[in-house]
Amino acid sequence: MTILVKKNATEQQIKAVMEALGNIGLAGSLVQGETQKMIWIRGEETTKMDAIKALVNYEGVEKVNPVNEYYKIVSRKFNPDYSDVSTTKIIDVQGVKIGGSKPVIIAGPCTIFNYDQLLETAKAVKEAGADILRGGAYKPRTSPYSFQGLGEEGLKIMYKVGKEVGIPIITEVLDTRDVDIAAKYSDILQIGARNMQNFELLKEVGKQQNPVLLKRGGLEPTLENWLCCAEYIMIEGNQNIILCERGIPTRMSGEYSRNTLDFNIIKAAQEKTYLPIIVDPSHASGRRDMIEGLSKAALSMGVNGLMIEVMRDNEEQHIKYTVNGENEITGFCDYKQSLEAADFKKLMGCLKNMY
Amino acid sequence: MTILVKKNATEQQIKAVMEALGNIGLAGSLVQGETQKMIWIRGEETTKMDAIKALVNYEGVEKVNPVNEYYKIVSRKFNPDYSDVSTTKIIDVQGVKIGGSKPVIIAGPCTIFNYDQLLETAKAVKEAGADILRGGAYKPRTSPYSFQGLGEEGLKIMYKVGKEVGIPIITEVLDTRDVDIAAKYSDILQIGARNMQNFELLKEVGKQQNPVLLKRGGLEPTLENWLCCAEYIMIEGNQNIILCERGIPTRMSGEYSRNTLDFNIIKAAQEKTYLPIIVDPSHASGRRDMIEGLSKAALSMGVNGLMIEVMRDNEEQHIKYTVNGENEITGFCDYKQSLEAADFKKLMGCLKNMY
Amino acid sequence: MTILVKKNATEQQIKAVMEALGNIGLAGSLVQGETQKMIWIRGEETTKMDAIKALVNYEGVEKVNPVNEYYKIVSRKFNPDYSDVSTTKIIDVQGVKIGGSKPVIIAGPCTIFNYDQLLETAKAVKEAGADILRGGAYKPRTSPYSFQGLGEEGLKIMYKVGKEVGIPIITEVLDTRDVDIAAKYSDILQIGARNMQNFELLKEVGKQQNPVLLKRGGLEPTLENWLCCAEYIMIEGNQNIILCERGIPTRMSGEYSRNTLDFNIIKAAQEKTYLPIIVDPSHASGRRDMIEGLSKAALSMGVNGLMIEVMRDNEEQHIKYTVNGENEITGFCDYKQSLEAADFKKLMGCLKNMY
Amino acid sequence: MTILVKKNATEQQIKAVMEALGNIGLAGSLVQGETQKMIWIRGEETTKMDAIKALVNYEGVEKVNPVNEYYKIVSRKFNPDYSDVSTTKIIDVQGVKIGGSKPVIIAGPCTIFNYDQLLETAKAVKEAGADILRGGAYKPRTSPYSFQGLGEEGLKIMYKVGKEVGIPIITEVLDTRDVDIAAKYSDILQIGARNMQNFELLKEVGKQQNPVLLKRGGLEPTLENWLCCAEYIMIEGNQNIILCERGIPTRMSGEYSRNTLDFNIIKAAQEKTYLPIIVDPSHASGRRDMIEGLSKAALSMGVNGLMIEVMRDNEEQHIKYTVNGENEITGFCDYKQSLEAADFKKLMGCLKNMY
Repeated sequence: MTILVKKNATEQQIKAVMEALGNIGLAGSLVQGETQKMIWIRGEETTKMDAIKALVNYEGVEKVNPVNEYYKIVSRKFNPDYSDVSTTKIIDVQGVKIGGSKPVIIAGPCTIFNYDQLLETAKAVKEAGADILRGGAYKPRTSPYSFQGLGEEGLKIMYKVGKEVGIPIITEVLDTRDVDIAAKYSDILQIGARNMQNFELLKEVGKQQNPVLLKRGGLEPTLENWLCCAEYIMIEGNQNIILCERGIPTRMSGEYSRNTLDFNIIKAAQEKTYLPIIVDPSHASGRRDMIEGLSKAALSMGVNGLMIEVMRDNEEQHIKYTVNGENEITGFCDYKQSLEAADFKKLMGCLKNMY
Repeated sequence: MTILVKKNATEQQIKAVMEALGNIGLAGSLVQGETQKMIWIRGEETTKMDAIKALVNYEGVEKVNPVNEYYKIVSRKFNPDYSDVSTTKIIDVQGVKIGGSKPVIIAGPCTIFNYDQLLETAKAVKEAGADILRGGAYKPRTSPYSFQGLGEEGLKIMYKVGKEVGIPIITEVLDTRDVDIAAKYSDILQIGARNMQNFELLKEVGKQQNPVLLKRGGLEPTLENWLCCAEYIMIEGNQNIILCERGIPTRMSGEYSRNTLDFNIIKAAQEKTYLPIIVDPSHASGRRDMIEGLSKAALSMGVNGLMIEVMRDNEEQHIKYTVNGENEITGFCDYKQSLEAADFKKLMGCLKNMY
Repeated sequence: MTILVKKNATEQQIKAVMEALGNIGLAGSLVQGETQKMIWIRGEETTKMDAIKALVNYEGVEKVNPVNEYYKIVSRKFNPDYSDVSTTKIIDVQGVKIGGSKPVIIAGPCTIFNYDQLLETAKAVKEAGADILRGGAYKPRTSPYSFQGLGEEGLKIMYKVGKEVGIPIITEVLDTRDVDIAAKYSDILQIGARNMQNFELLKEVGKQQNPVLLKRGGLEPTLENWLCCAEYIMIEGNQNIILCERGIPTRMSGEYSRNTLDFNIIKAAQEKTYLPIIVDPSHASGRRDMIEGLSKAALSMGVNGLMIEVMRDNEEQHIKYTVNGENEITGFCDYKQSLEAADFKKLMGCLKNMY
Repeated sequence: MTILVKKNATEQQIKAVMEALGNIGLAGSLVQGETQKMIWIRGEETTKMDAIKALVNYEGVEKVNPVNEYYKIVSRKFNPDYSDVSTTKIIDVQGVKIGGSKPVIIAGPCTIFNYDQLLETAKAVKEAGADILRGGAYKPRTSPYSFQGLGEEGLKIMYKVGKEVGIPIITEVLDTRDVDIAAKYSDILQIGARNMQNFELLKEVGKQQNPVLLKRGGLEPTLENWLCCAEYIMIEGNQNIILCERGIPTRMSGEYSRNTLDFNIIKAAQEKTYLPIIVDPSHASGRRDMIEGLSKAALSMGVNGLMIEVMRDNEEQHIKYTVNGENEITGFCDYKQSLEAADFKKLMGCLKNMY
């Protein structure tokens, strides 16, 4: 259920309502809309209906609304500020606005190998027009024998490169125990497709201030599941979430592309939620020659941004990265779906006249 | 295998090669490229290799090329005229060029109910800028209790309307026994998704002169299966095929859209074949509110056209169609994925500045 | 809707009801239950409700039941004789009872190549305990360059072998134009997975007397679609249908098996329909080493039979079949999912103590 | 790569090899086979080939074997003790042997609500013949508004009940931070389908002594991914893993069952790995009326056990559980796929004559 707070309610009054919720074994999240505040009730409500309804008698409370949904806070339906389907919540990341009129471009390498590699790539993508730098410090890899990322060292490299180049950064977290440290170094925290339904991880990033990019995936990448996962984050207090469509596994996976990019879900998701939605054509296809077409298609549909894997030119020659002072050959992952920097620059030239 | 014919080869010489093929239990299809002719050998070749290779000694033969593929004629690889991936075969339908620089718009109702309905819709879509009129006379319906179409009477209505309005027409065939009559009335023959691997039907439309629109579908809508089905048509002599992507069933089907539109296959198909490819956003989504976004996405990727279901304005009020002089209520199918004529006109306005 | 006929209704009375149906633009199929007859109304009923209801006044009519379903005749719900979920319709094929207490084993080669091959295989499977001989005369093949079957000649070989060995036969039909001739030679007509939703073909086999084996497949192999396809056959008058589960395409297809055998549908189908259901472990897996395990699993669940591909011992050595007097190498299809005769005999030994 | 240790190698010699591995930046896991020890090399090996090969010169080393696979330790191929496909590793859980000749039955409620509920259910399943008690303390739930389990309190209840009833217990873990405490209370740790590719969680349970039950699932439940996930656990030192097939999402999910139980993978997995495999018919179908049939099918195929959800009789009446002293209505999850205790007893009666 939700409690609509009066426009002139005092902090004291709101606090009293929160305490009253606590007394009946529930908790509340305060949501600041454009014009009015709302309290979203958390916890199992069904047995406490009478007690909840009685809160209408508290000072500062305008209305108590019953809700019986799988997800609430992420929903356009329960947010009067976003009832118009053409509106999107704008998420500000160091001045970059995700969800506004201009689509946001996130670009960078799959994996961080060392300072030089990331610096060079970061400069190249920024110069080409990218708004945010991506890079992986913790890497979820199919086989335990594949390079698993530099971990905290990678975070530090990324932080340093971001500051030097002057570009916000995004990186993936895999473990609840790494969330604090990742939140310290990275502007945006990414939940990867394999972890969409890792609920404990969702709760943990929900406790951070950093915006979260939530990739669609998990055991069953339905729209309902995706939005429930966003709700898991929001209910903890973090309401800055960017949704990212990156393709779903289908019978076609592996025949001519890695996944099937699902554009049908864009409109369907925009109808249900006000959160910004971006598309990742690199993972959606697994093929660098598909990135241009899919990027154009995504922008022409009005998505709020793109996330593209970019590596340095001639990256295959750099392939013997020095990782921690040792040669690393097989660490170079996902290069088939990465654009070289020069091709990313060309792509950005094509895309610019689309917005 | 293929036999490359010399540029100056005479008809007599070609006929002699054909007869020689017949003598060894094979047949040949003559393909006219831009600059040179080729004979595609049909039938089981593996046991006749020596005899085939010996054909190089016939006058007028330049070269005999071995092939060991699931499909050959549809393949860019075996067509020197289309080795450049940016080239597409242009198929001319009464002056409308499918595969050229301008995308072709096919529009019209799911089902033909009567002359007035089709005439009114045809006028509306033509005025809005559609190039070709679609309409169903034979309808594949999930339940035998649903209206199965007007059959031959529908064909005649469609033919008449096409002539009056001055627009080429396309209609689906379901049965080998109806192909002749449909070919007589309709400019283009359509193979629907359920019949993609109805091989006998493919062979039958392959014997006609009419261009064929081949929807992707069947038991396993892989790229290889799709192109093999085009090959089934081509090998019979009909090389004017338009491919149509209309979405695939996935785990998501039914949650927020009818199918999952697969844009990844566009680039992959263009790489393998020179045939024009169009997209059907109506069946791909099953939702009229998704048609605009998906249409824009498709055109921005460079597809050769769109196929969109359009009904008259306020069609729900016309719903008690007079079918064969009787009222028909449930015959009105797929209206959830059809645009009303006025909305189609608006859509065409949006799309026009994309090409 | 359905019309329940009184137990003592005369043929004349029933004929009068049928004529009345015809007068209002509908048709009826007479279904003989164990104890009572029923007339299933065919055609678009919704606009004729009053006229249909008025039929209750005809002599011999006990009741008029409204129905608003995708399928009716195949449904347990509308068949009082089969309202008990443990009952199954028994279909008699030359004395072999499909749907009774003993599961029925259908075995034989994928493709008929010649008389000797089929005779030898038929003798082997009969000796091992098979009840019915399978064999393909019309073959749906992915590529047009693969051997497409012997056609009518294959039917004749099969007919002859069936008579000589004393075993009923089943063969697949692909084309409406071949149904008459196939029905003349074969005891059971098979609709393959690619043609499940080939509605014109379903209607055509529905006009024959031969029992029909309907494989699950098509664009969307849902339970509803499967039963609707059975309804398409039944509504034409042929009510002897055997359902056959042969696996569905999934994301897993091709990784370790050809399809995913779906045992969940067995119970779900038995709940909805009284038709016998068999399982085809050969196509469901595409692997001969999986046939034994899947066969045991199927029988332990209480399916009404199995359909297994069996070839002669050392079939790879026979691979240069003489097809129509010429050598044939690549015609040998699907051998990876066929058991050799000796292994089939062993399998039958294992299975026999399961029933 | 692997290092085969001589039968008479001393601990000192093995230690020296381990140290040598450490010196070249690698680590080793000692695996005790039936007759001989092996060291599995961990870490990125490709750049250190020469150094690894040189280890053959150490005392106690018999052979150094190159490996270039996604997974190694779980593979039958690299384990001479299990090269025979009919052999299975036996995992002993408090005297219950999983992988032996007798299939193991795991049964119990979806969720632990309180002591009485679990005790009553535990007694019932034990009396009916179950070998191991299941119960959820940490619950992965689609919506954050659903009851998330009792957490540590649930673990303590379960531990107590297990001891009182005299039955080993299994429970799911969701968060790396909960693994230590769960390992203290539960005999077996379960990795659920949503977390199959939660690699950090896999590593953490890999560090425990408790056997791990690894459900198939994740973003892409391929056989390769499943075995790679087992490898993630094994490589940390924990080699007691039980695989559990619980169905995969397909196009059919939701039509007549929750998932599609994939029996094809049983044989395919047994070919690749020696780990015991069990089947969970409750999650595979989501329907209690399907449990009997699927259980019989699984046992007839030779799986090593079943995992079945069982609740008390008339559980719906207990539905207002006292959770932490408060009424709980919606906490009752998955009851549609749970057998009541009396039906479980009947089922066990049916199954007993299958082994």
